[in-house]
Amino acid sequence: MPKIPVGVLGATGAVGQRFVELLVDHPWFELTALTASDASAGKRYGDACRWLLSADMPASVADMVVQETAPGVECAIVFSALPGDRAGEVEEAFAAAGYGVFSNASAHRQDVDVPLLIPEVNPDHLALLEVQRARRGWKRGFIVTNPNCTAVMLTMALAPLHAAFGLKAVLVTTMQGLSGAGYPGVPSLDALDNVIPYIGGEEDKVASEPRKMLGRLVDGAIQYADFVISPHCNRVSTREGHLETVSVSFRQKATLEEVVAAWRAWSPLPQQLNLPTAPHPPLIVRSEPDRPQTRLDRDAGKGMAVTIGRVRPCEVLDVKFVLLGHNTIRGAAGASILNAELMKAQGWFDR
Amino acid sequence: MPKIPVGVLGATGAVGQRFVELLVDHPWFELTALTASDASAGKRYGDACRWLLSADMPASVADMVVQETAPGVECAIVFSALPGDRAGEVEEAFAAAGYGVFSNASAHRQDVDVPLLIPEVNPDHLALLEVQRARRGWKRGFIVTNPNCTAVMLTMALAPLHAAFGLKAVLVTTMQGLSGAGYPGVPSLDALDNVIPYIGGEEDKVASEPRKMLGRLVDGAIQYADFVISPHCNRVSTREGHLETVSVSFRQKATLEEVVAAWRAWSPLPQQLNLPTAPHPPLIVRSEPDRPQTRLDRDAGKGMAVTIGRVRPCEVLDVKFVLLGHNTIRGAAGASILNAELMKAQGWFDR
Amino acid sequence: MPKIPVGVLGATGAVGQRFVELLVDHPWFELTALTASDASAGKRYGDACRWLLSADMPASVADMVVQETAPGVECAIVFSALPGDRAGEVEEAFAAAGYGVFSNASAHRQDVDVPLLIPEVNPDHLALLEVQRARRGWKRGFIVTNPNCTAVMLTMALAPLHAAFGLKAVLVTTMQGLSGAGYPGVPSLDALDNVIPYIGGEEDKVASEPRKMLGRLVDGAIQYADFVISPHCNRVSTREGHLETVSVSFRQKATLEEVVAAWRAWSPLPQQLNLPTAPHPPLIVRSEPDRPQTRLDRDAGKGMAVTIGRVRPCEVLDVKFVLLGHNTIRGAAGASILNAELMKAQGWFDR
Amino acid sequence: MPKIPVGVLGATGAVGQRFVELLVDHPWFELTALTASDASAGKRYGDACRWLLSADMPASVADMVVQETAPGVECAIVFSALPGDRAGEVEEAFAAAGYGVFSNASAHRQDVDVPLLIPEVNPDHLALLEVQRARRGWKRGFIVTNPNCTAVMLTMALAPLHAAFGLKAVLVTTMQGLSGAGYPGVPSLDALDNVIPYIGGEEDKVASEPRKMLGRLVDGAIQYADFVISPHCNRVSTREGHLETVSVSFRQKATLEEVVAAWRAWSPLPQQLNLPTAPHPPLIVRSEPDRPQTRLDRDAGKGMAVTIGRVRPCEVLDVKFVLLGHNTIRGAAGASILNAELMKAQGWFDR
Repeated sequence: MPKIPVGVLGATGAVGQRFVELLVDHPWFELTALTASDASAGKRYGDACRWLLSADMPASVADMVVQETAPGVECAIVFSALPGDRAGEVEEAFAAAGYGVFSNASAHRQDVDVPLLIPEVNPDHLALLEVQRARRGWKRGFIVTNPNCTAVMLTMALAPLHAAFGLKAVLVTTMQGLSGAGYPGVPSLDALDNVIPYIGGEEDKVASEPRKMLGRLVDGAIQYADFVISPHCNRVSTREGHLETVSVSFRQKATLEEVVAAWRAWSPLPQQLNLPTAPHPPLIVRSEPDRPQTRLDRDAGKGMAVTIGRVRPCEVLDVKFVLLGHNTIRGAAGASILNAELMKAQGWFDR
Repeated sequence: MPKIPVGVLGATGAVGQRFVELLVDHPWFELTALTASDASAGKRYGDACRWLLSADMPASVADMVVQETAPGVECAIVFSALPGDRAGEVEEAFAAAGYGVFSNASAHRQDVDVPLLIPEVNPDHLALLEVQRARRGWKRGFIVTNPNCTAVMLTMALAPLHAAFGLKAVLVTTMQGLSGAGYPGVPSLDALDNVIPYIGGEEDKVASEPRKMLGRLVDGAIQYADFVISPHCNRVSTREGHLETVSVSFRQKATLEEVVAAWRAWSPLPQQLNLPTAPHPPLIVRSEPDRPQTRLDRDAGKGMAVTIGRVRPCEVLDVKFVLLGHNTIRGAAGASILNAELMKAQGWFDR
Repeated sequence: MPKIPVGVLGATGAVGQRFVELLVDHPWFELTALTASDASAGKRYGDACRWLLSADMPASVADMVVQETAPGVECAIVFSALPGDRAGEVEEAFAAAGYGVFSNASAHRQDVDVPLLIPEVNPDHLALLEVQRARRGWKRGFIVTNPNCTAVMLTMALAPLHAAFGLKAVLVTTMQGLSGAGYPGVPSLDALDNVIPYIGGEEDKVASEPRKMLGRLVDGAIQYADFVISPHCNRVSTREGHLETVSVSFRQKATLEEVVAAWRAWSPLPQQLNLPTAPHPPLIVRSEPDRPQTRLDRDAGKGMAVTIGRVRPCEVLDVKFVLLGHNTIRGAAGASILNAELMKAQGWFDR
Repeated sequence: MPKIPVGVLGATGAVGQRFVELLVDHPWFELTALTASDASAGKRYGDACRWLLSADMPASVADMVVQETAPGVECAIVFSALPGDRAGEVEEAFAAAGYGVFSNASAHRQDVDVPLLIPEVNPDHLALLEVQRARRGWKRGFIVTNPNCTAVMLTMALAPLHAAFGLKAVLVTTMQGLSGAGYPGVPSLDALDNVIPYIGGEEDKVASEPRKMLGRLVDGAIQYADFVISPHCNRVSTREGHLETVSVSFRQKATLEEVVAAWRAWSPLPQQLNLPTAPHPPLIVRSEPDRPQTRLDRDAGKGMAVTIGRVRPCEVLDVKFVLLGHNTIRGAAGASILNAELMKAQGWFDR
């Protein structure tokens, strides 16, 4: 079976590099195009890019020539790591030109006709693409978004609980790694020996995106799930990994054992389909008193699993726990690639 | 007026050193005795102690000879920085021998006849000492404790709110500095690039101590305040400073403006008495979107003030905010010294 | 005696803030002008400046209005914290307009008619100002520079050794703090868990500046001192403080005791004149096996002293040791202010 | 071909864990025994060991039962990660009992009849084992040591230069990662925002070990190489990786090009034999101005390669450069395993 040619928009940034790393040996996709700002267009990727990841830049991409970020690049699918303020228009232009757009940007996440997708959570929301194409007059192209890095992990932990017990309220405090701010991102003088209890725009996304993803698709529109989320978002001095302390209340009573059982029993579609990037299991529930820890657990499931621990009763709501996920893999590039894998497995690209 | 001679029990540890630093030039107290484990007894303090603080060890204490930790040392008051498991018996022995004991240890905090004191919050709880002396048959000696480092800051922020609006529920997530674990404490391999979402015993203290301090003294006993606290305690890689994200609900509705006004109007006893270590104001409310930050705000009020910021509505409870305090000053040694200053100002040592 | 009115050029940057902090309560100087880039001109300093220092911004300066960086500001002396590429022309314009310019920038350090000054080391080089004024046609104005942050500490440690034994060769490896790169400076993703063995332009400065300062003024020109310096400059993840490992060889044999004695006996002019910012002693020689350490010793002498330790024979050259100094105080703003204090004490501003 | 059964002595410590990780899927060796202190003996390895590495503990070892550290364990070879003070006697007991002992401890490194081995550098020193067995009366057993973590990388970079140009003097300053001190090792309060310019015993090892390894075996004894090394050893706040700045002088003149060519041309025995753990190439010479960096280069060659950069003339000696290696892989467990691979390839275990 020939691989599907794919491109990365904004390939030189922190998330763009993760896309490149995860796509370079992908069994289904072949990386054929890299785009960046006009200043980088025309250069070798190896020259245009200040490589940030621990593993060396794959040799096969170093010699690829960076192109302008505009339709015309040779591929069928583009993964967008564009900055939020540029992504909106550019992604529409690509979709209009017939590309399948998998976007990590926030620009279109709240559009009523754009799926905000976690394959484990709401694969049925892909049906929105019919609405999208009809409304926007797109024949082949489309836009599918993945959620905010903090919202992904949270939503994955909440999904089986919402299904089993019905969520009423969620209170979450995050301790987010530095890579979430991109590069150069947080100055070291702000990061060292410090916690910054504020990340611009983050709390709005965390309060809203999980409710869209856990919502129901009714008559071509998403009905947001009926519960409230209160986030406190903080930047701490870790490289990668978002750790979250979570308290939840349910509509229906649930023991701690039932909560853990709901997580352990969760076997969603990507795992059933054995998608290449899907972690097994998607949720890891640990019983040690001091896990998950950022450094020890962020790479679980090659960065695609969410680790949960310290499940205990909450004095104010019903249950509390800690969760952790890798913000640039499950929280960004890996999420987007898994979205594309799901659509590929469902035959969207055969049509 | 002659100064009161004071000693520090456990003077070589991390908190013991803070006691020494804060007492060495104190206007009311004179540091006349330093004790440590038997292994250190007989040595110069300068030799027995691995000094951890940024400012050099005060020259005047370096030559003091460390004594065994047992009654008989020359002073009227002792400040106890003993480890939790040793503090219980030793502190009782000192009190029985007639010393005023100001303890930073947790051993006696929950004793029914021991005041758990923040001078700004519950100075009236000192009346418990009558009960204590009667029960234990102590003539002159007594034990007064200060709360857990995380509980102090939280209780100070809650006190004016509880007085004005009545607390119903408090949900708090902490990001606690490394010095809270003492020395050697947290191994650097666990601290670097990591968050540890667990601190042994901490959550129990934070769930309980504020309720004792905000309780009422009725007929010689403390009635714990009638609200619930749910803590999530985390260790992050900062040297000093505990940052806490807090959501609260009230019995009586309160606007954000009323909440801020309650904090700003708070003018408790230590500030009225102008105690040497009392910060002016005790609570600093900041309006920037990204404050308090650990590094920038922990030294406010010479480490004795609590800084509050990001006051906003909570989607789940009523109001949420961020607070920060210095864990080894306001959260430990400074707290204990302020306790002693209050009793001195109230004439307890004149009798 | 009325204070001399002074201004800070580039007052909103990392070094500019240190100037402000050190000048705000200065006994001889009164801070009357703050300048910054055109974008900040006209704003309150408190609004224009992202304050980086631990102590809060002094209230008295927060309301000062930032001015454009051009002659016309109301003061007699300006301290320049301008970036290297802007400093050259602007400082000349100020000097031509009659201001005394004390520059922390590198632009004029190697000019043949500009003193590169450490008051403890080469106060006689101020005589170059006669040459400078004659050559440039300046009546009252002048430019005096202070050295690169790494070169200051090194030169202070070398000065008594060069005087006593004659230097032949110096091999130095530096571990420099993050604040040396300014703000935003080093991205946290580059700093965390990393050492960067390169600082652009730094090694050239360290190889050359000490030789100018330890040179002799002969017939109106500096003859560079006749020894060689080989620097390896590294950026490590500390906030403030430059630590340097140094090996030296001498023209004349010297025992370790003689080396230490030379440092201990050093009593240069600023200490004799008791200049307000001069540390007593300027060099602190410690005998512990593991000192100086960055965090414990950088604030020695209020950040103006240099701490030396681990003095021992070098297997390759003659003697080796470790030194440490505070890069934004002794290495930048404090150095410049001490220069101005020396000239004030010598009556230069009375003329 | 059946695998050789091997054991790890001191398997629960930081280096012991690296041994386990590297041996668990080894093509030639089968991990059959794990030993630790008596307190751990009898427990499951998964329970006895606080696992420190990012990758999870291999499932196959978690259920192995930890044994006492004494001869009798079922294997032919033992890798020793014992602490220095225990290693001496225990390793001799194992060798006397017929085990091949590959030791990472310093106890026997300077014994005249014990090879201090880097397979790329001095494979011929294995001939010392004849002397060792004769002297000690051992039939089958033996002790082979690998060098100090800092000395390994340095010696690998020096070996081709010594062969080509003859070393005269080496001056090295190290910036060593925290894992080098084991676990719990360096307290976080000492590591954060600090450099410690002292590591007990380290400088003696670095000054001596490379000279043994680069020495010649003459008449059954090692003649140490005739050059001097002056080390300055520092602990910095990185997790893994030792970075070293090096200045060298040669007996014979060499251009920078010739130096680089000597490194690039180096093709030692382990690479020729294609030993499983041998990196290709063993030395990586980079041309970027700011490499190697600790975080970016420590994992090169799966942690077994040494990366060199910033090759330039030295103002004091002849040439200077920066090198970096992974201290717990190439500097400890990996080094020891490569030693065993060499002996296996040379047929030592067939006899």
